[in-house]
Amino acid sequence: MHDFNITRAARAVVRVTDLNTARNFYVNGLGFIETESDENHIYLRGLEERGHHSYVLKKAEQPGVEVISYKVEQDRDLDSLAALFEGKGMKLKWFAKGSQQALGRAFRVQDISGIPVEFFCSMDTVERLLQRYDLYRGARMQRIDHFNCMVPDVQNAYDFYRNELGYACSEYTMTKNNDIWAAWLHRKPAVHDIAFMNGKGPRLHHVGFWLSDPMSVIHTCDVLASLGYAKSIERGPGRHGLSNAFFLYLRDPDGNRIELYTGDYFTGDADFEPIRWDLDDPQRATFWGHEPPDSWFNEAMPFVDFNTGKPVVVQEAKLEQRKPDFIV
Amino acid sequence: MHDFNITRAARAVVRVTDLNTARNFYVNGLGFIETESDENHIYLRGLEERGHHSYVLKKAEQPGVEVISYKVEQDRDLDSLAALFEGKGMKLKWFAKGSQQALGRAFRVQDISGIPVEFFCSMDTVERLLQRYDLYRGARMQRIDHFNCMVPDVQNAYDFYRNELGYACSEYTMTKNNDIWAAWLHRKPAVHDIAFMNGKGPRLHHVGFWLSDPMSVIHTCDVLASLGYAKSIERGPGRHGLSNAFFLYLRDPDGNRIELYTGDYFTGDADFEPIRWDLDDPQRATFWGHEPPDSWFNEAMPFVDFNTGKPVVVQEAKLEQRKPDFIV
Amino acid sequence: MHDFNITRAARAVVRVTDLNTARNFYVNGLGFIETESDENHIYLRGLEERGHHSYVLKKAEQPGVEVISYKVEQDRDLDSLAALFEGKGMKLKWFAKGSQQALGRAFRVQDISGIPVEFFCSMDTVERLLQRYDLYRGARMQRIDHFNCMVPDVQNAYDFYRNELGYACSEYTMTKNNDIWAAWLHRKPAVHDIAFMNGKGPRLHHVGFWLSDPMSVIHTCDVLASLGYAKSIERGPGRHGLSNAFFLYLRDPDGNRIELYTGDYFTGDADFEPIRWDLDDPQRATFWGHEPPDSWFNEAMPFVDFNTGKPVVVQEAKLEQRKPDFIV
Amino acid sequence: MHDFNITRAARAVVRVTDLNTARNFYVNGLGFIETESDENHIYLRGLEERGHHSYVLKKAEQPGVEVISYKVEQDRDLDSLAALFEGKGMKLKWFAKGSQQALGRAFRVQDISGIPVEFFCSMDTVERLLQRYDLYRGARMQRIDHFNCMVPDVQNAYDFYRNELGYACSEYTMTKNNDIWAAWLHRKPAVHDIAFMNGKGPRLHHVGFWLSDPMSVIHTCDVLASLGYAKSIERGPGRHGLSNAFFLYLRDPDGNRIELYTGDYFTGDADFEPIRWDLDDPQRATFWGHEPPDSWFNEAMPFVDFNTGKPVVVQEAKLEQRKPDFIV
Repeated sequence: MHDFNITRAARAVVRVTDLNTARNFYVNGLGFIETESDENHIYLRGLEERGHHSYVLKKAEQPGVEVISYKVEQDRDLDSLAALFEGKGMKLKWFAKGSQQALGRAFRVQDISGIPVEFFCSMDTVERLLQRYDLYRGARMQRIDHFNCMVPDVQNAYDFYRNELGYACSEYTMTKNNDIWAAWLHRKPAVHDIAFMNGKGPRLHHVGFWLSDPMSVIHTCDVLASLGYAKSIERGPGRHGLSNAFFLYLRDPDGNRIELYTGDYFTGDADFEPIRWDLDDPQRATFWGHEPPDSWFNEAMPFVDFNTGKPVVVQEAKLEQRKPDFIV
Repeated sequence: MHDFNITRAARAVVRVTDLNTARNFYVNGLGFIETESDENHIYLRGLEERGHHSYVLKKAEQPGVEVISYKVEQDRDLDSLAALFEGKGMKLKWFAKGSQQALGRAFRVQDISGIPVEFFCSMDTVERLLQRYDLYRGARMQRIDHFNCMVPDVQNAYDFYRNELGYACSEYTMTKNNDIWAAWLHRKPAVHDIAFMNGKGPRLHHVGFWLSDPMSVIHTCDVLASLGYAKSIERGPGRHGLSNAFFLYLRDPDGNRIELYTGDYFTGDADFEPIRWDLDDPQRATFWGHEPPDSWFNEAMPFVDFNTGKPVVVQEAKLEQRKPDFIV
Repeated sequence: MHDFNITRAARAVVRVTDLNTARNFYVNGLGFIETESDENHIYLRGLEERGHHSYVLKKAEQPGVEVISYKVEQDRDLDSLAALFEGKGMKLKWFAKGSQQALGRAFRVQDISGIPVEFFCSMDTVERLLQRYDLYRGARMQRIDHFNCMVPDVQNAYDFYRNELGYACSEYTMTKNNDIWAAWLHRKPAVHDIAFMNGKGPRLHHVGFWLSDPMSVIHTCDVLASLGYAKSIERGPGRHGLSNAFFLYLRDPDGNRIELYTGDYFTGDADFEPIRWDLDDPQRATFWGHEPPDSWFNEAMPFVDFNTGKPVVVQEAKLEQRKPDFIV
Repeated sequence: MHDFNITRAARAVVRVTDLNTARNFYVNGLGFIETESDENHIYLRGLEERGHHSYVLKKAEQPGVEVISYKVEQDRDLDSLAALFEGKGMKLKWFAKGSQQALGRAFRVQDISGIPVEFFCSMDTVERLLQRYDLYRGARMQRIDHFNCMVPDVQNAYDFYRNELGYACSEYTMTKNNDIWAAWLHRKPAVHDIAFMNGKGPRLHHVGFWLSDPMSVIHTCDVLASLGYAKSIERGPGRHGLSNAFFLYLRDPDGNRIELYTGDYFTGDADFEPIRWDLDDPQRATFWGHEPPDSWFNEAMPFVDFNTGKPVVVQEAKLEQRKPDFIV
């Protein structure tokens, strides 16, 4: 057993080139709640969230992802996690409480795949707006749900998150050669907090947000189209075979991708058996059979190195690149 | 055959004691579109409507209903209808084009039950907002659908609207003695433009508005409760046995009642046979078995005499007063 | 004015090569009600329909469409319509009452585009299952809504249906040269009973069926995928710009195309102004911006000549073939 | 910290007087999946569940509840829990693996309130039907969610479950005197696995089942009404203020109560602060303002003593009996 407890995927810090352009998309279009903003940041949260934010838009010259963050149960878990990473020779960068808006002490580290991840325990709380239905707009965004990353070596990432960080696997995809092609890993008892899929990386494929029901997804499409954002709809709406979620993939005005996601299932039983999907089995493709567009398969967001400020170096995927229909 | 063609229920003019209080309920709460307003009126329409308004809030000392209006196919239909009413000794009051905001020439008359009804052919048109999903709020109000009136002699009203005005009957309720207790009558091929039910009257029981789907009804309840209007929810949400509609009855801050209504059916076949319901058959009660509250059964809106400005005199119902569960 | 009254699109007779294969798709998959069948026919209806059927599957060696049928108001309307067609030199074929299962007397004629259309006044009635929610399955099919045909000369078809048959236009598409490219025409006050679009024809593009809400469309996709019919989903779900309907296009096991359709609007006002869409205006494309697949644009169902039993001869489209995104 | 980990509410064993009558309600009406049955039992599960059952109907002369059961993480947790209960002088009854259909070893104990509870680690698994949408019927039952019990001393139950068993509190109700009137306690990160409310007890108020969306609740009402079960609908559909869930309360043919429940929220953050509701605050009543019927407030299911087979003795509530509107 581990002497720390990671609770869940908690926030992402994503670069945008124009804050007002981004605000119009996320707040007016999608219905995110803007907790606060300054000249370089907009702090967004969902209607259910009592944390200050789960998604930070940060003004920059170029798009890119600064960090994806996990919340831990207790403050001392940060020290245990820090020891684990340092024990493997990974270099940490600590952030004192308050040095990041609304956030307690935190550290960042490049994980085994080179992804800049962050761990924190506490964040300022604000009013939860779950029952302020009069403020519901667009996607009626509820809460952050998960991250999905392309990495060149899924087996390596899978092993690290399962064995070292205590994640459980809900579903996974195997090649004919029994190589693991993609994996969905969770700490909270849902399908995932993080998914890894085989690809040039590390890159962030998308951040997933939870909605309360499929009609919110449909309404999102209608609202986005009304506002001139039809081209932001990249894939869906549809039903994932893997995860069973009803989904929609969107690209913000800078090309950052998010997923609207609802309807997965409970995975908290200790004897839950991960569900295996074969990469080549057409029967297990996207549930309704629609093919994702090439952009969905090829494009992803670069990470930014928190030490150098430069893009994190990416590597080609170890396994042959393929266009599977069913990745979520 | 008649030498005129009444198209549909088209608008109601309803008194409220405070325009801003009413606006908050109808616009912020329910999502009506406010076409325009002056110091004594607010003109409201649904998202689908290209007519200037379908519901007029008129400032007054006391609540009351000034008129319910029908749209006819051609301007000359007004003359034919006027001749019909005058031939029966009923007195008309004509309104010149423009004397009522946005309305072409029109006349009002007290119908066979004493209800002040109005006929017009043309109304100014405005932008239809059906595909401005970014403006959808609350009930996502689509369009006016029907009126429901309590009258002391349903048979009399039924005969007049069927025989003289050319309405068809979709559904009706009979007592054990084969007296007609209530009737749903239509010109457009839906369940009704006007319903009559046995009761002290004439009084307006409610104006019905069409929504696109049941989830809009559920969301309305949530939004109204968020805004402090929980007490405005008088009955429902529920499913009508009669009409099959999914419904919600609301009372505005002055007690005026409207119905949110969705999911009836096509009645346009000439050989459609009206559906009979027995007043005493418990199997045919409100579809899910919920009883309406007493207020729903007893309370209705007084009409205002368009000549005198005083309340239209009401009479007791001819048939025994009963609390049936299934009136819509 | 015309001396007849066509009520609505009422039924289609469509050939399938295997009745049991077709039954599994339509009844088990889509939730059509099977009124009855014999060794060569399956008669299907929606939950709301009290007519015996609205869709006939007829066993044949090859797929093809035998006829699309309209219901008229009065029996004598058949004679008036017959006189109209014969006056133009079009040859009719009469069917005596009962010679077609459940149908009163009827005649067929090839319309101005060569489409085999049929008119009838009466059909046997059966139990309406609208409130038998325990029988709702799959798409929860409600009723037939419309036909959509590809014809080589839309202007010609448009003129005939508007001027001779009394159809009104709700929406239409124009080329840069102000040629009419497609038109949506109705008798009932909805967007259409028949649409014509420019293309090799006459061919039947699809039969549209009305559903009560968008979630029924989503559930249809899930059910079809569960039953192995994912490949039957050709286009959608999505929102039409033109008509505003939420839609799904399906191909049955023989390739016959149907549309599931919900959420258009009331068009019954005499002063309704048809909505014009420009063929080249990207802003007016499919509301969410998804492109239809090529198959949707190129493939349609051949009609069968009711005299010869051979395929109706098709002609190339008069206007340049284009792939617009927004045809419904 | 505790040396055991209770995962979640997992099953209930409920007596019915006629298995076929009960089957018609639960399977045909509500859409539960019947895993198997024998002459004295029907084993039911939801579409998402891979465990053999979550709800057992057991034939008996009189209604009553035999046990409510929790699943633990590891087999050895059973021994730790057994030691805890025995250390407090509570008597256990062990059941060997297989002595209960599909269940691993388990023990039962009367908890601090006298409720017969059971703990087990393993249950036989069966095919998960989550993506067999063709089998979705009625409520489209997904999975068991929670229990709600009336107990005479809520503070006592609250302390035991929080301090001894490691449950966290999500929401609670306080009287003016700061007595705890009701509490919602969870192990999985949702609003509850068990709720206690002040009342004569111990009695089981209801078993809650999770649905995927509100339209499944609406459809349940329609289906039940179609099948003649309108009287089984006791309360709702509506929105809970407390928990935010969309709900429906049903009584089975023997009067056993279940809740259909969807739309609560994530409670898994260690720093989640329980939400306090005042018993007398009208603003915090049932979200839409509907009052529960008296039956909902007064009636609950008796537990059966697993040693004697006789009803568990009940005591009057310690706090004054009140009819609050907002209990979930």
